[in-house]
Amino acid sequence: MSEQLQQPLYSQSLIVDLYELTMAAGYFENNYNHLSTFELFVREMPAHRSFLVVAGLQQVIEYLLNLSFSEDQITYLRAQPVFQHVTPEFWDYLAKFRFHGEVWAMPEGQIAFAREPLLRVTAPIIEAQIIETFLLSMINFQTLIASKAARVVQAAQSDGVNRMVMEFGSRRAHGPEASLLAARASYLAGCAGTSNVMAGMRYGIPIFGTAAHSWTMAFPTELEAFKAYHKVFPESTILLIDTYDIEEGARHAVEIGPQIKGVRIDSGDLLKESRKVRRILDEAGLQHVKIVVSGDLNEYKIAKLVAAGAPIDSFGVGTQMVTSEDAPSLGGIYKLVEQQIKGQVRYRAKFSRQKATYPGKKQVFRKTDSNGHFVEDIIGLEIDEIPPGHFPLLVPIIQRGELVYDFPPLPDVQKFFLQNLQRLPEKYKQLEPTEPYPVRCSTLLENLFNQLKQQELELESQE
Amino acid sequence: MSEQLQQPLYSQSLIVDLYELTMAAGYFENNYNHLSTFELFVREMPAHRSFLVVAGLQQVIEYLLNLSFSEDQITYLRAQPVFQHVTPEFWDYLAKFRFHGEVWAMPEGQIAFAREPLLRVTAPIIEAQIIETFLLSMINFQTLIASKAARVVQAAQSDGVNRMVMEFGSRRAHGPEASLLAARASYLAGCAGTSNVMAGMRYGIPIFGTAAHSWTMAFPTELEAFKAYHKVFPESTILLIDTYDIEEGARHAVEIGPQIKGVRIDSGDLLKESRKVRRILDEAGLQHVKIVVSGDLNEYKIAKLVAAGAPIDSFGVGTQMVTSEDAPSLGGIYKLVEQQIKGQVRYRAKFSRQKATYPGKKQVFRKTDSNGHFVEDIIGLEIDEIPPGHFPLLVPIIQRGELVYDFPPLPDVQKFFLQNLQRLPEKYKQLEPTEPYPVRCSTLLENLFNQLKQQELELESQE
Repeated sequence: MSEQLQQPLYSQSLIVDLYELTMAAGYFENNYNHLSTFELFVREMPAHRSFLVVAGLQQVIEYLLNLSFSEDQITYLRAQPVFQHVTPEFWDYLAKFRFHGEVWAMPEGQIAFAREPLLRVTAPIIEAQIIETFLLSMINFQTLIASKAARVVQAAQSDGVNRMVMEFGSRRAHGPEASLLAARASYLAGCAGTSNVMAGMRYGIPIFGTAAHSWTMAFPTELEAFKAYHKVFPESTILLIDTYDIEEGARHAVEIGPQIKGVRIDSGDLLKESRKVRRILDEAGLQHVKIVVSGDLNEYKIAKLVAAGAPIDSFGVGTQMVTSEDAPSLGGIYKLVEQQIKGQVRYRAKFSRQKATYPGKKQVFRKTDSNGHFVEDIIGLEIDEIPPGHFPLLVPIIQRGELVYDFPPLPDVQKFFLQNLQRLPEKYKQLEPTEPYPVRCSTLLENLFNQLKQQELELESQE
Repeated sequence: MSEQLQQPLYSQSLIVDLYELTMAAGYFENNYNHLSTFELFVREMPAHRSFLVVAGLQQVIEYLLNLSFSEDQITYLRAQPVFQHVTPEFWDYLAKFRFHGEVWAMPEGQIAFAREPLLRVTAPIIEAQIIETFLLSMINFQTLIASKAARVVQAAQSDGVNRMVMEFGSRRAHGPEASLLAARASYLAGCAGTSNVMAGMRYGIPIFGTAAHSWTMAFPTELEAFKAYHKVFPESTILLIDTYDIEEGARHAVEIGPQIKGVRIDSGDLLKESRKVRRILDEAGLQHVKIVVSGDLNEYKIAKLVAAGAPIDSFGVGTQMVTSEDAPSLGGIYKLVEQQIKGQVRYRAKFSRQKATYPGKKQVFRKTDSNGHFVEDIIGLEIDEIPPGHFPLLVPIIQRGELVYDFPPLPDVQKFFLQNLQRLPEKYKQLEPTEPYPVRCSTLLENLFNQLKQQELELESQE
């Protein structure tokens, strides 16, 4: 069905909190495996964020379609004392385990907000429960990074000029796989590419790289280092000019000649230095030579440089983007909202003011105006009629365990996100949010919630 | 040699910034592959941290011993336009690539400070350069998390009581592999175990788990949910009692009977709630039933609960520990410090005040007093004589590409760290650092640095 899908890098089946498996065994032994619906959503927006960029769905689906437990894994589990009273039938069940459920989700690159289900799973509760940890880990991380990267790219282009942002953060990401996933999520949200070669090969992302300070330091002089590099990469020479003295570095770059493509500045006052360097290049007739800057950048520093008119052509951004430094976790949760017990729908909800969970299988309806701009979202029930002028955000991805969705290539996901971003009015995408995008519940959903709450109160008063 | 070593989970060879490979090709084509020494260190301590817990070395060595480039990977690289002028000989070289160098490092679980080399690589510069990205990604992340987890565990035991901290953060770690590595690093730094089953199986870490709110919500009543769980896990029942009302939950737990092991509270004012719950349990004669708490905890919240005498027996800690939320990246860097060119040692250094890099192959010497307490570290040259009363922290790990170090099992690494922590005087391990642990350079190293700086200044004045 989908050419884009890949085999997971390694067996991910035991990337699971132990309690998912004790609950699984508990449901099995109690013969209590009702069809259940869980929804994945974020209760509150992370600090400073006004929208989320949905990411990680493809890796979730690759996991689900490949999810099974090997003999070794089952042997390990059986030996855990906690499982000592579990019957052999459960282990037989686990040995044959496959995901047979249904998944609806917002496509990657969709713009989403707090409280909106990003993904909805309906399956026998054992299947729906076991997958929780992986789903959260993958969607939380990629959505976190995509949402951060979108801000960085926005800042780089905040004067309307199409400056590139390159993701350079592999060395500071949370381990090797995080570097790979961060490269993917950043590209999806508008970065031009990454320094991470594996991300290039695995996801088809453009890869970028220049040279490090060590290159310059390894040669007797900076000029010799530049010459040695240019000899091997004559058509793609970007010279790092701040190892010793930036202005001298710029003059050495000029000496290499007009074939060089760019220079990179990785330290110092980037506004001042980029201006000096631009002047040196221009005076030598190298107007076409680009200036790339890097060095602990974030959206705020970049917006300031752009607003000051710094003559910078592209940004290399690492640490702060790939760790989402100012808000380094996304609090996505996965909540039971509905069960089918003996043919009856049983809604599940939580009524506490801070941690309310709304019941029922949901859909998100987005209203657009005549220009296609996003106006408002309504969180409704799946059975809600689509209100006029709205379109539904959750689409079917897996049905009866089978893929029913054609994953687009990653460049198309990026295009889709950039179109969505265009459709989101300016006032909802400031770096510091001023006005939240309006999200409300449908009448049907509010009524259901209130009705269940009323029943709960009545039950309590009877006790 | 070392039974502990494992195959990497997946081919990690292309977890590399493109510029490592362009530099590699550049060195190759310039026939410039001198023996070079790089050192990995942190320039400044992360905010709030007074010591680092070294972690990630084992995975680095597994990577180095398995590092090679497959035909597919080379085909991908050759097709990149940047490499168009690179000769076929370089690709032949890459096809046969193995790491033949030397690695010295601080063992995992060692306590380290800013400016101290955690790891030192000596190899032909192409080999030493290519491995930079992976080494930084792995050491930066695991050291970051171990250093955070050490604080959390310290806080939980700040009154001298040996309370367990369990790592519960998989769903908020930066992707699946980060969840695995965070579990490892947290355990190494003193956590009792993890909820991550794969970390249990792969690293032999004890695994813990109870049940989620969804378990309780899936049954018609809380009491039915508790009974259903207890039936399957009679000897390891820990009941989550805050799905609806905590006190009522505690009373339902009492109804299950004295065989239960514990209750968990995941929300609310944990001091107040733990006291109420303790009273309910005690009044029912369930003094032996433990109270576990969780819910967005960190070292500060835990220290406060402990100081207030909250009747809490163990802590489940997730998000803030596995993302090191208050300092979510570690700025480890990897710098060229020495080369051997035609039999001559050529020191490499940087003299800028903020970003100085000291030259030469280094060793760290730690002074202990008669009680074995750490007194001071001296960063010296490898050729420095070990000062009396000091011991060297960097030990040989790989020589001529061969492993010469016996990796201890992870529980022994944890013991080693806990012993080190005991040896670190109290004043250097406050949650908010007051006095930095003293680290200075040896006379030999300072002299070398000043001499090179002098030469540099003379060169500049001649220009």
